[in-house]
Amino acid sequence: MSHQSISLTEKLTKFNEHWTPKVIAKMNDYQFKLAKIKDEFVWHSHDDTDEMFMVIKGTMIIKLRNGNIQLQAGEIYIVPKGVEHKPYAKEERHIMMIEPRGTVNTGDANSVITADNDVWI
Amino acid sequence: MSHQSISLTEKLTKFNEHWTPKVIAKMNDYQFKLAKIKDEFVWHSHDDTDEMFMVIKGTMIIKLRNGNIQLQAGEIYIVPKGVEHKPYAKEERHIMMIEPRGTVNTGDANSVITADNDVWI
Repeated sequence: MSHQSISLTEKLTKFNEHWTPKVIAKMNDYQFKLAKIKDEFVWHSHDDTDEMFMVIKGTMIIKLRNGNIQLQAGEIYIVPKGVEHKPYAKEERHIMMIEPRGTVNTGDANSVITADNDVWI
Repeated sequence: MSHQSISLTEKLTKFNEHWTPKVIAKMNDYQFKLAKIKDEFVWHSHDDTDEMFMVIKGTMIIKLRNGNIQLQAGEIYIVPKGVEHKPYAKEERHIMMIEPRGTVNTGDANSVITADNDVWI
């Protein structure tokens, strides 16, 4: 059991690469992940789970098949399970995601940008 | 399915009372709750679940039986299930909590400050 709070900004200093979610905390069987993102991700969905996005720095877009969600720092959006989405950021942005342990970043899409899962920082 | 992002600061304008968590979003069977807190809460634990705290504004203390966790804006702490804790804030602070739907704010402690559960804003 940790006896320290977890600082999102401090954890964000520990990596630089884009689209590689890093785990910073767990709550039951869910994980809190930080990511730095830039440019287009791939269309994908998660058939078994909703997925929460929160922007820490900047503005991101979550493209959906029937519209776009614009997310600013301090805003959250939860993509329902099974819904295709494509995250996008014009410049480098910092985000937090919450999802069940084992959730793969590219969901149902086989992709060269599938990141290693369960990487803690 | 909502097609809008959820702004934490905008939602926080919708209520003023202390220690009454309001639900702003769901992710699978978990809920995201906002609360305004001030002064001492009660000692309690949640036997069935971890509980996530994130400070949005100001600084709070989570008192534990063997030490205190100080949490500033942009920091998170996850109280493990079964661990007694007592939130405290010297001045009014704004926080977000994440926990399974149905989690009662006072946990195992019967109290006059047990809040209505599952109240959405």
